Amino acid sequence: MSEPKKVNDLRAGNTVDTTFLVMEKELKEFTSKEGYYLQVKLGDNTGSIWGKCWEKAEEVASLFEPGDIMRIKGVVESFRGRLQLIFEPEGVERSAETYDIADYLPATSKNIDFLLAEIVKTAEGMENEYLKRVVFSFLHDPDFINSFKKAPAAKIHHHNYIGGLIEHTQSVMALCETICGLYPELDRDLLLAGAILHDIGKTAVYEYTFRIDVTEEGGLLDHIVLGYRMVEEKIKGINGFPEELSLRLLHLILSHHNYGEWGSPVKPLFAEAEALCYADMLDSQLKEFIQVQKYEEAKGKEDVWSDFSRRLDRFFYLGGGKTHDK
Amino acid sequence: MSEPKKVNDLRAGNTVDTTFLVMEKELKEFTSKEGYYLQVKLGDNTGSIWGKCWEKAEEVASLFEPGDIMRIKGVVESFRGRLQLIFEPEGVERSAETYDIADYLPATSKNIDFLLAEIVKTAEGMENEYLKRVVFSFLHDPDFINSFKKAPAAKIHHHNYIGGLIEHTQSVMALCETICGLYPELDRDLLLAGAILHDIGKTAVYEYTFRIDVTEEGGLLDHIVLGYRMVEEKIKGINGFPEELSLRLLHLILSHHNYGEWGSPVKPLFAEAEALCYADMLDSQLKEFIQVQKYEEAKGKEDVWSDFSRRLDRFFYLGGGKTHDK
Amino acid sequence: MSEPKKVNDLRAGNTVDTTFLVMEKELKEFTSKEGYYLQVKLGDNTGSIWGKCWEKAEEVASLFEPGDIMRIKGVVESFRGRLQLIFEPEGVERSAETYDIADYLPATSKNIDFLLAEIVKTAEGMENEYLKRVVFSFLHDPDFINSFKKAPAAKIHHHNYIGGLIEHTQSVMALCETICGLYPELDRDLLLAGAILHDIGKTAVYEYTFRIDVTEEGGLLDHIVLGYRMVEEKIKGINGFPEELSLRLLHLILSHHNYGEWGSPVKPLFAEAEALCYADMLDSQLKEFIQVQKYEEAKGKEDVWSDFSRRLDRFFYLGGGKTHDK
Amino acid sequence: MSEPKKVNDLRAGNTVDTTFLVMEKELKEFTSKEGYYLQVKLGDNTGSIWGKCWEKAEEVASLFEPGDIMRIKGVVESFRGRLQLIFEPEGVERSAETYDIADYLPATSKNIDFLLAEIVKTAEGMENEYLKRVVFSFLHDPDFINSFKKAPAAKIHHHNYIGGLIEHTQSVMALCETICGLYPELDRDLLLAGAILHDIGKTAVYEYTFRIDVTEEGGLLDHIVLGYRMVEEKIKGINGFPEELSLRLLHLILSHHNYGEWGSPVKPLFAEAEALCYADMLDSQLKEFIQVQKYEEAKGKEDVWSDFSRRLDRFFYLGGGKTHDK
Amino acid sequence: MSEPKKVNDLRAGNTVDTTFLVMEKELKEFTSKEGYYLQVKLGDNTGSIWGKCWEKAEEVASLFEPGDIMRIKGVVESFRGRLQLIFEPEGVERSAETYDIADYLPATSKNIDFLLAEIVKTAEGMENEYLKRVVFSFLHDPDFINSFKKAPAAKIHHHNYIGGLIEHTQSVMALCETICGLYPELDRDLLLAGAILHDIGKTAVYEYTFRIDVTEEGGLLDHIVLGYRMVEEKIKGINGFPEELSLRLLHLILSHHNYGEWGSPVKPLFAEAEALCYADMLDSQLKEFIQVQKYEEAKGKEDVWSDFSRRLDRFFYLGGGKTHDK
Amino acid sequence: MSEPKKVNDLRAGNTVDTTFLVMEKELKEFTSKEGYYLQVKLGDNTGSIWGKCWEKAEEVASLFEPGDIMRIKGVVESFRGRLQLIFEPEGVERSAETYDIADYLPATSKNIDFLLAEIVKTAEGMENEYLKRVVFSFLHDPDFINSFKKAPAAKIHHHNYIGGLIEHTQSVMALCETICGLYPELDRDLLLAGAILHDIGKTAVYEYTFRIDVTEEGGLLDHIVLGYRMVEEKIKGINGFPEELSLRLLHLILSHHNYGEWGSPVKPLFAEAEALCYADMLDSQLKEFIQVQKYEEAKGKEDVWSDFSRRLDRFFYLGGGKTHDK
Repeated sequence: MSEPKKVNDLRAGNTVDTTFLVMEKELKEFTSKEGYYLQVKLGDNTGSIWGKCWEKAEEVASLFEPGDIMRIKGVVESFRGRLQLIFEPEGVERSAETYDIADYLPATSKNIDFLLAEIVKTAEGMENEYLKRVVFSFLHDPDFINSFKKAPAAKIHHHNYIGGLIEHTQSVMALCETICGLYPELDRDLLLAGAILHDIGKTAVYEYTFRIDVTEEGGLLDHIVLGYRMVEEKIKGINGFPEELSLRLLHLILSHHNYGEWGSPVKPLFAEAEALCYADMLDSQLKEFIQVQKYEEAKGKEDVWSDFSRRLDRFFYLGGGKTHDK
Repeated sequence: MSEPKKVNDLRAGNTVDTTFLVMEKELKEFTSKEGYYLQVKLGDNTGSIWGKCWEKAEEVASLFEPGDIMRIKGVVESFRGRLQLIFEPEGVERSAETYDIADYLPATSKNIDFLLAEIVKTAEGMENEYLKRVVFSFLHDPDFINSFKKAPAAKIHHHNYIGGLIEHTQSVMALCETICGLYPELDRDLLLAGAILHDIGKTAVYEYTFRIDVTEEGGLLDHIVLGYRMVEEKIKGINGFPEELSLRLLHLILSHHNYGEWGSPVKPLFAEAEALCYADMLDSQLKEFIQVQKYEEAKGKEDVWSDFSRRLDRFFYLGGGKTHDK
Repeated sequence: MSEPKKVNDLRAGNTVDTTFLVMEKELKEFTSKEGYYLQVKLGDNTGSIWGKCWEKAEEVASLFEPGDIMRIKGVVESFRGRLQLIFEPEGVERSAETYDIADYLPATSKNIDFLLAEIVKTAEGMENEYLKRVVFSFLHDPDFINSFKKAPAAKIHHHNYIGGLIEHTQSVMALCETICGLYPELDRDLLLAGAILHDIGKTAVYEYTFRIDVTEEGGLLDHIVLGYRMVEEKIKGINGFPEELSLRLLHLILSHHNYGEWGSPVKPLFAEAEALCYADMLDSQLKEFIQVQKYEEAKGKEDVWSDFSRRLDRFFYLGGGKTHDK
Repeated sequence: MSEPKKVNDLRAGNTVDTTFLVMEKELKEFTSKEGYYLQVKLGDNTGSIWGKCWEKAEEVASLFEPGDIMRIKGVVESFRGRLQLIFEPEGVERSAETYDIADYLPATSKNIDFLLAEIVKTAEGMENEYLKRVVFSFLHDPDFINSFKKAPAAKIHHHNYIGGLIEHTQSVMALCETICGLYPELDRDLLLAGAILHDIGKTAVYEYTFRIDVTEEGGLLDHIVLGYRMVEEKIKGINGFPEELSLRLLHLILSHHNYGEWGSPVKPLFAEAEALCYADMLDSQLKEFIQVQKYEEAKGKEDVWSDFSRRLDRFFYLGGGKTHDK
Repeated sequence: MSEPKKVNDLRAGNTVDTTFLVMEKELKEFTSKEGYYLQVKLGDNTGSIWGKCWEKAEEVASLFEPGDIMRIKGVVESFRGRLQLIFEPEGVERSAETYDIADYLPATSKNIDFLLAEIVKTAEGMENEYLKRVVFSFLHDPDFINSFKKAPAAKIHHHNYIGGLIEHTQSVMALCETICGLYPELDRDLLLAGAILHDIGKTAVYEYTFRIDVTEEGGLLDHIVLGYRMVEEKIKGINGFPEELSLRLLHLILSHHNYGEWGSPVKPLFAEAEALCYADMLDSQLKEFIQVQKYEEAKGKEDVWSDFSRRLDRFFYLGGGKTHDK
Repeated sequence: MSEPKKVNDLRAGNTVDTTFLVMEKELKEFTSKEGYYLQVKLGDNTGSIWGKCWEKAEEVASLFEPGDIMRIKGVVESFRGRLQLIFEPEGVERSAETYDIADYLPATSKNIDFLLAEIVKTAEGMENEYLKRVVFSFLHDPDFINSFKKAPAAKIHHHNYIGGLIEHTQSVMALCETICGLYPELDRDLLLAGAILHDIGKTAVYEYTFRIDVTEEGGLLDHIVLGYRMVEEKIKGINGFPEELSLRLLHLILSHHNYGEWGSPVKPLFAEAEALCYADMLDSQLKEFIQVQKYEEAKGKEDVWSDFSRRLDRFFYLGGGKTHDK
């Protein structure tokens, strides 16, 4: 019988021999006797489980640090209603495999390659050669694409997982395509280029080795200015890029959070900027709501009302289930 | 040679014999002699022109009131760079034709029948029988449809013209269809029903005989509560409509302006309500921007910057023209 | 010697044989040995006390649920400075009496019948027959009166207890009577009808079997719209109710929370609506302050300053006692 | 036949010989010939009328200044639908009578002596000797009473007329009496003393010789601090005034505008202060609304909606008349 | 007798032969006869005067455009209490001199060379070689210095005149020097470099040929991002510039308007950034107040209170003169 | 070998015989046996340490209260990584010395006498005799000086330590001196007098026997009004003090927190008031930031980012150390 490989497949009684990301590590004093045991938080992209090693705690603890990928052999137990993974000192070894961080951190449930293909397809449909070139100067850059496919769009808020950036980007782009259909007076290529590039600064804002963290540059300059800088650099490399078009595209990046409360240094100053700004807000707010709603639903309360959510500043309605199930 | 029929086709020297909406009427004293002349503002759905009758002013003035449709014969002149229509006392008669107010007030530039067809098509695609029935209880109601096709969505702000409501409704619906594609976890039928019905209360808020006005009921109860009442009444007429589904649909109407600054009595309390709220905001804000931008562009200033717009609270960028023209 | 009947009469050493509302129920592990004891929170309308049963905990626990009224025989003990009620497994039985929930939940300290009589008296003094009839269509409705006399006015904030709604209603009405004396230009009957009916939607917002909870309808539609619906339904049943009067009365209900921050869908649009809005605010804010002040005073701190109150967003002044006592 | 004495009694054709307050004075050039005529704005406590003197304009103009009370003999004419008073150079003389400014500026329509009697009666009912003494140290001070009976409560906003302060004070006091009936836990004497004294600083804020103006002291220190200073001075003169009671009373003055937006240096820190704060707000907001509503009604528009009011930030509802008239 | 050279020296009766900036130009119809006269607004750095040419208006008007510097010979007259300059068609010729725009637009009353010297002196006192080099990369750049000495700091608000930028920069720098004395824990060189460079983006935001205008780049990207870009470019040219120091300096530029209401894309994230932010605010707000105060004082009203100032949102106090004069 | 005298000099193993302020006192139950031990928090102006007495806990506890200065003999031990001071029942005696509270509470790190000397020097440089006299009426008052040198400027926020008021005052004064240099149009003496006196009300707001507390007067009237009262009283004692100058100085006190959010009863109404307002804000905000930054740095985290600070409402940047160290 094959052993379970992923955290959310584990059940009490399983024996396990698989790799995990070490997320936390702590030596804990026994309450009943002298000495320490080792407690670790082990995760993959499906969730996390507490692991415990009762013996040689200090020695075992010296073998790895949070952020390492370790192969653990052990047994799953139930303790006070929650699962834990008990392992022996010998059951721990450093994984020799190369691995993809996306296998060990929470990640988008969408297919990243599909999202990218959607973006490329839209970019290929552009008619303005300059905008098309600046967009493809990113989409044809393998280093950029590597980051773009993995980067989260946040540390704490909406889309705060591997692939969050590209998921959000494709959503905003799709909304903007609908907008262009409704408002033919808008410059379609400009709005779509803005949608594709609006958050690319986030590839430089987050690092994610064993959790999502903000880089020094990311915190001190933020994604709006970093994205502006990345786009401007590419524009400089394109001969004859029209001046006004360049200013308009850069303005789309700078204004997409709206002036004031949300941190843009300029208000949207033409209609495509206004459109991008609200498309970004729609997707951000909706995803935020859905993430919080799923988190509350996962608690399995027997109540139609959620607990109070600070992030949404409200109790919200869980109801009796999906309405179409009735 | 055929005479011009519409205000925006008039040129100095034209003779005119056509019907106009009387928008304003005023007796003015001559500065150079005793007595009065008659000044009227004459409009149709392409714009308005000042008309003047130099003789028998009081007698002519007694023939009609603002809001009447009158057939005017006269001559177009240029005065201080603006056109005016000079007519004789004999050149005025009450129009005997029946007419459509949409021919005399500013109206959407979109095809209203097409917009309605889009909405019907989406409604036909609904799978939930209850939601489908409540939507069609409106779409199959000829009195409702008559209002729905003509009503503006505002008096002063975005979509403040004949057909504004249906244009806005179709846009919000289209955005929600895109959202449903991006977020399959949402209840598609619920969100689309909400999108189609969210602003129907506006059919009772505005009257528009010769300009857009707010009804007593519209001002005192407002479109959110009026729309809620209309939908609730239809739901009552549908046997076995599930209670939770009814509450959810009514909540979508009530919460679509968000609690607080914009006047909803409740915050959005589940994801479909959040989605509708931001889709409505996107279309409203974007249309508002575009209407103001067109108004400023029409001034024909030789400047890349607009005049200050109180409605947008900014100077905005007119630029050198559509970027793709360059 | 008669035994104490109410929680706030209990003293260490009392034997008890009376009915309580079970507010919470939990099996707790012994720290000193294997197994469980039963801990319950028992309440009536004077307060609550922790009860403990050391034996057959699981069996006893199966006899009742939170929300049940149980007859408990036991002994009051002092433990770490707080009272607790110790009972045997045999000392628990389901109460056979019918009971009034107002005897088991926190309730107004005012006489509810007196409050109602005050409201009826004011209603009887109305001269406008239509307003009088709509008010009495509620006051003569025994189901409504039953709810109206019990309903709280909130779950967490001011007047959050049995009878809170009628207490608040009578206060707002009394303030409006004073206002009518000061401002004879106001329509007295309209303002008083608005005062009496402004919060009746709350009878449908709260349920209170063993604690105050928000109904699905109450949360999703809220009391303003629910109250509007209730009043409109009654108006429809009154032949010849003048249209403008109807709109004005409904507007009073809808606008009484002011537009914006507090959730009305419309701003007050005539003076009686403004008056009701501020009378409601006065009573709400003052009661909120007094409830918090009493809560802080009950702590018995030896300090002139209260602890920081999040609800009032301030430290406030307790002083050295009632100033007139000095 | 007796001549009309008051501005609002004047009709075209009247001859006039009465005293007016000169509110404005201007020499205007004739458009049809060389030279000047004199235009003045003449007022009393019922309104104002434009006066014109066609001859010896400069000479006549030198006889008086705005703020003077002049006896004018002349004839009332109608010009472009408005009345004006035509007078000869000989028809102007300085009034020899002593006069009361309240006869020449807009004033409360209530009986000031009655308002004062109400306040005195309430003060006499106080039981706390210290609070009673501090209140009567004002009410028995003839200079204070003289100011208190005349002072307006504002220059532009609510109660901006002679007697406005005492009218507002009596209203707030009446509201507080109702509050004390509803909330017996409040210190009645403290709240009533606070209500009577809360705005007395306004006697030093406004001067009103021929219009309401702000004094230097009034503008730079404002009525809250000036009132605080006045009350503190009186308290110092009362032997044995309890320290805490003194602090509480002074705090009522200082906090009655609420901290923050409305300018109090401290938040209300006990319940009586909260009560006063909201009673003051109720009367201020309601009077503001009523004054604006009367102003709009006086325009005599044939529309159920008012013009947009900047002061109320809304269009409001005029309706078809007082609802009880129907 | 030498003729006056500057606008604020002109008196009625003067003959004039000097150069002016043409600020406005308009052909006006005579009211008394057929034809046009020419009206121009003529200015220099001391003020402006209306000029009129009664003959050959169209011909003369064709000789120049607003923004040109013209030599005008004419006579100063008084008309309705204001001065005007009457000139003949022959009295107008294009100025052959080269000129400095600072002689024709409102300019700082401070000595620009002194301000620059102060900045250079402070920069010379820096100990950190990297910061010193980046500052001097600007101060040694003659093109930059040319702009830096002339640029205004605003179009409408504080320091909206030639030299406004350097005046404001020196003030903020001086405040920061004081701050460094008070808070030795701050990094002096970092704060001073930030103070000197914080607004340099404004050299690219404004153009000022005959009035102050916003460039396309200035409006669409704004001075914060433009300044960031300028500093980053210079840093790239300095070998070995420490990474953290670079981030800190760039952060000072980006955060100096504070996040939110005032338009910075990031909040100040270390103490030097906080210091710069508030030093900038102090100087901006104070200068704004002083400019408005001078504008109101110049009206010469006989009142201690100013007219209402929208920019300051208050009436303010003019008083009886400088207090030390008394 | 000399024993350590101050908390921040203590190391494990030290024997101690010195005086401490008792900050907290609590009897704690032993977990391992019956009975209590005594736990106290002992502090001086360098920090605090937990002290424990294992025997005769209740007897020892009866010897002193929080706020007392006690001489403690004991031994410093390390427990779970933190130091604690173990003492015998005999090792506690009441200190017979007189002491200065500034030796036992956190205090400014600046030299208070130097700060005072700076203030006196500035005051001596004033030219306006009236302002100079009012300032020296405080600076020559030994009771005032005693309070002024010790008072904190806050309980929780910036400068919340002994000497905080004078430190803040000198900083604001220094900033104002710089401002006067930059803006010679300001009345130097008025602004400096305002700077020196603006917060003197705080001497009556805080009491600090063993911690900083707010007095009744301080909480109910607050420092702005208390400072106003103190200054006005001194002005009354100065013969011939000009009225306008008096109003201006009092206005500086009253307006220095700006109207609205921060609690001034009046907005700054002339330029010196605006200057003081922003100088006060600059020093307050900067000190707040620096105090929080030091608190976070003291945690010794190995991260460039601080923990989230509620007081600053942000994560901020700790970086890799002082930039000039690199």
